[in-house]
Amino acid sequence: MSQVNVADHRARRARLRERLGALDLDALLVTEPVNVRWCTGFTGSNGQLLLRATGEDLLITDARYDERAGAEAPDLPRALDRDPVGLAIRRMSPPFRVGFEAEHLTWQAGQRLRERVIDAGGAGVPTTGEVEELRTVKDEREIALLREACEITTSALGWLLDEQVQPGITEARLARLLEDRFLDLGAEGVAFDTIVASGPNAAIPHHAPSDRVLQRGDMLTIDCGARVGGYHADCTRTVGLGHVPDLLHDVHRLVQQAQAAGRSAAVAGATGGDVDAAARQVIDKAGFGQEFVHGTGHGVGLEIHEAPAVARRAAATLVAGMTLTVEPGVYLPGLGGVRIEDTVVVNADGPATPLTDLPRELRLL
Amino acid sequence: MSQVNVADHRARRARLRERLGALDLDALLVTEPVNVRWCTGFTGSNGQLLLRATGEDLLITDARYDERAGAEAPDLPRALDRDPVGLAIRRMSPPFRVGFEAEHLTWQAGQRLRERVIDAGGAGVPTTGEVEELRTVKDEREIALLREACEITTSALGWLLDEQVQPGITEARLARLLEDRFLDLGAEGVAFDTIVASGPNAAIPHHAPSDRVLQRGDMLTIDCGARVGGYHADCTRTVGLGHVPDLLHDVHRLVQQAQAAGRSAAVAGATGGDVDAAARQVIDKAGFGQEFVHGTGHGVGLEIHEAPAVARRAAATLVAGMTLTVEPGVYLPGLGGVRIEDTVVVNADGPATPLTDLPRELRLL
Repeated sequence: MSQVNVADHRARRARLRERLGALDLDALLVTEPVNVRWCTGFTGSNGQLLLRATGEDLLITDARYDERAGAEAPDLPRALDRDPVGLAIRRMSPPFRVGFEAEHLTWQAGQRLRERVIDAGGAGVPTTGEVEELRTVKDEREIALLREACEITTSALGWLLDEQVQPGITEARLARLLEDRFLDLGAEGVAFDTIVASGPNAAIPHHAPSDRVLQRGDMLTIDCGARVGGYHADCTRTVGLGHVPDLLHDVHRLVQQAQAAGRSAAVAGATGGDVDAAARQVIDKAGFGQEFVHGTGHGVGLEIHEAPAVARRAAATLVAGMTLTVEPGVYLPGLGGVRIEDTVVVNADGPATPLTDLPRELRLL
Repeated sequence: MSQVNVADHRARRARLRERLGALDLDALLVTEPVNVRWCTGFTGSNGQLLLRATGEDLLITDARYDERAGAEAPDLPRALDRDPVGLAIRRMSPPFRVGFEAEHLTWQAGQRLRERVIDAGGAGVPTTGEVEELRTVKDEREIALLREACEITTSALGWLLDEQVQPGITEARLARLLEDRFLDLGAEGVAFDTIVASGPNAAIPHHAPSDRVLQRGDMLTIDCGARVGGYHADCTRTVGLGHVPDLLHDVHRLVQQAQAAGRSAAVAGATGGDVDAAARQVIDKAGFGQEFVHGTGHGVGLEIHEAPAVARRAAATLVAGMTLTVEPGVYLPGLGGVRIEDTVVVNADGPATPLTDLPRELRLL
């Protein structure tokens, strides 16, 4: 499936344009690279979208990216200018109101923009999360790319568990074998640095793969994802090497139940907080609430962490087509830990559909 | 050489503390992760340094990173707090002046900080480039890490040119072989995504490695770097596959001369603009000025692009111990291009010392 689709990007800009009215804006200057990519298809590191209520949108980049912009966003007029704010000002007649991304522009750049816009007889208006909120609901092409990234991820992780995990190999070596496999299977890169945490290291949620050698009796947590067309997969499985302590068996079963409860709760109309509560309740009831030290998940797409939040008090309502992770975990310092994670798509009814379909039961290798 | 050195980091903070007086600040809140790392040694993704005129510095992080902070910055008192601004405010008595990094905090975060500080009877003062300017001059340990990163880079690139570059292989495959070699040789990762640009693609300065198959008669530009202890190498060589057009031979010789002129001009007391002018003059005189479409280089260290600038009108004066790239290029759309780049250390006298020492003459493979 081609990643260049003018109609998709035009539809996204139309949805964003509808927000301009509510914000009483004549234009929005989109500067955050992922937001620019989502709105236009352009992937260069220097690109800004001037989205105008009139529909006269403009992609502003520089000479280095002229060709790429033409290939990736062929429908958009573009300008080569190192001063996008100046260009935006010149295109509009006072009094005008231009929004900027207040969570992305630096304080200095935001102040400078506001000063220049005021000097030109307009107003610079801080906005937050406008594109991010639209990005939460994925279209068919986005789901297809996420599905591909997730299939590469589970295929590579399945291979690693089948063929490579054994006592004597290091965490770092496993991470590298897995990441190489992603590329062999067609990924453009990794979604994030792979976590391979064995034995006591599995008690550290964000452990970086070390030279620790796997030993019989270890629990092993692997948290990984491939990236395809800019879209990020995110999947975690925890397995045992031979005989593992009964307590970890029990904890694995508990986390598996919590994770299933989270997936079931991730339905249109629920909130991210509801998903978190569903998973957390299972773990709390079993007396391990203090050992579940992070949120249950996060939105995932063009960024590995994006809206909506899936954590305590997360208030955003889920909508069909949103993609999230569901990843409860229990961490027992000194002993090990268990995390099980899927990337899922929210449905209108019923449990969310996992895109990372790999058995979740405790596997003993 | 160990990467934990309390004395180095203490010396860096002492230099930064000297700036507080000139800025009339009681404290500076350092939030940019690379700046925090440089000041403290701490490498986690959530860490802020409250640097105080009194010397009562504080590293603020959260429970996830408590252990790492203790290991990496053992000399610094630390606090676990998700609200570093609130903590900073509680530690100081009004009226106080606390600086923030206006080029790094978002507009929204900067506004919020200023409001809260005013409410607490203080003043939030925007600062720009304070840590970045100190970072430009490297100490011995930093130069040693850069040297190691550069040696891995040239060793791997030399191997790639000797053993792997040949008609029939793709750009993407070469990039992967090279990056794997970096890891085999002890790099912690790549400094940036490797550029492998063959044939007409070599006319695109920031070309991403594609499935294009190398052909006899191609020019081939490889721009790459390994990362060691957080420090980034940056090196480019352009080679030919068999017989290449005379024009490209001439352009290669020209770029080589321009690059040597740039390295010679990179001496203490000159400006980044002088280095750019020295390289650019050679290319301008030969009539290819329009085809040299970027600056001559950039500072390099804990970031792949950092101060000082090495471009037209770059006014910062070079000092011994600064590390830069010198990388002129000429790009001929449709035909190909040539870029030659070294990472160099500025000396008190005489030409800069290249850390990436690999032959620069046109090599025909």
